[in-house]
Amino acid sequence: MTRTAFYVSDGTAITAETIGHATLSQYDFTIEHITVPFIESDEKANLLKEQINRRFKTTGHRPFVFHTFVDKSLAEKIADSHSICFDVLEPFSKVISDKLNVPANPVKHRTHSIKEHKYDARIEAMNFALTNDDGQTTDNYKDADVILVGVSRSGKTPTSIYLALQYGIKAANYPFTEDDMEDFKLSAVLKENKRKIFGLTIEPNRLAAIRNERYANSKYASLRQCRMELREVERMYKGNKIPFINTTHFSVEEISAKIISAMKLARHNH
Amino acid sequence: MTRTAFYVSDGTAITAETIGHATLSQYDFTIEHITVPFIESDEKANLLKEQINRRFKTTGHRPFVFHTFVDKSLAEKIADSHSICFDVLEPFSKVISDKLNVPANPVKHRTHSIKEHKYDARIEAMNFALTNDDGQTTDNYKDADVILVGVSRSGKTPTSIYLALQYGIKAANYPFTEDDMEDFKLSAVLKENKRKIFGLTIEPNRLAAIRNERYANSKYASLRQCRMELREVERMYKGNKIPFINTTHFSVEEISAKIISAMKLARHNH
Repeated sequence: MTRTAFYVSDGTAITAETIGHATLSQYDFTIEHITVPFIESDEKANLLKEQINRRFKTTGHRPFVFHTFVDKSLAEKIADSHSICFDVLEPFSKVISDKLNVPANPVKHRTHSIKEHKYDARIEAMNFALTNDDGQTTDNYKDADVILVGVSRSGKTPTSIYLALQYGIKAANYPFTEDDMEDFKLSAVLKENKRKIFGLTIEPNRLAAIRNERYANSKYASLRQCRMELREVERMYKGNKIPFINTTHFSVEEISAKIISAMKLARHNH
Repeated sequence: MTRTAFYVSDGTAITAETIGHATLSQYDFTIEHITVPFIESDEKANLLKEQINRRFKTTGHRPFVFHTFVDKSLAEKIADSHSICFDVLEPFSKVISDKLNVPANPVKHRTHSIKEHKYDARIEAMNFALTNDDGQTTDNYKDADVILVGVSRSGKTPTSIYLALQYGIKAANYPFTEDDMEDFKLSAVLKENKRKIFGLTIEPNRLAAIRNERYANSKYASLRQCRMELREVERMYKGNKIPFINTTHFSVEEISAKIISAMKLARHNH
């Protein structure tokens, strides 16, 4: 049985999507997901209401609707559809307003917009991550919040970018290659910034699989090579007391959250 | 008056952060935000409860706590603190379970983890965005979902990466330079993929400011040069019926949502 979920807002609908996804992930329904951002007029709200009602008619199930509207008259139109409809901020703001005796004062585009606090910091951090990706330059390490190190394809780049985009954290990253490993010491610039360094590692089989997608059957992608490189970097991490994690079973979101905790980094998304 | 908000989970706490931020953005409180992910043991939960209670004692205000726990015994420990405490999925799953007579069955790390549906698609899309950034290559346009075009520093790269990371959309991007504008025509490869092209533009003053941060007082950053380039690309968009938006007042989240709607792209985060 397939059900339909609508995520709706007069903004980006990102908050509605996040809470809707998380809620529905607790059930075994098969869901068709429909995100509808920028419902900013009566006309758009009416069209959406018709779409929701059509979906009810054709499937025989009331669709789920998760919405965040600043304009409450638009919210009412949507709530008036044949749906199981949730105003996703209301349960919390109702309690806060009641307990503290302050009214909620929703302002359009206060989240996920350019007016958001720290928006520029996030874009600046993303540019930092791209400029300082893959050891392209080591000149800016004094400005870095964290320097991720690890062998090629161990997850440094996606993690650096996620830290920037989500949290406004300036993450550089530096790859260790076989050439570094002969007499494996941290270079001068890494030594100077040692307290910023965080290491990534990964299981050899997984690394070999990832590298094979890029350069099939190369020495670079061989299990033997991956094992050697990982053994060397892990030994170096331990010898230099560099904190590190094994990324094999974690998403970039999880890896990022763990790095933030371990390095006590400030989140700039607040 | 500063209040404290805790965002807490046995996972990344991203859902709790999102809903907590959005809720509190409706009030004029000054908030100190504290995110605490991976509370996965009784010991950690007890320590956090003590931290919340200390905050209550030192400030005289009950902190806000937004949490998502799969392990309900951990949730109970946190709820037992001196706080205004919200289980952020509960109001919705309670209604769904009651109305449809199905129990919620929370599974750990079902969102924001590597087990998440479409996780690999998002990482693949991010690699695609980086490989096909800034016109580095045009060889992969057959695999692109969208090709963003525009002058240098009009927002192509952050938007491409956001589309990838958030939605698993494969976005390439291609910069137009002064050299393209002499006799401004789409190149053969862009013409072949014309239905995938989406244009970005920006106000000349804003563009000049952004370029000046990079290359102060250069011809490239001059208002005159910015005006000329933007006039030419906008004329070209119109002549070729290429859809485009002015990014000046929008965040990457908003620009991305607008592109997805305009190009009818499928979101791969569901």
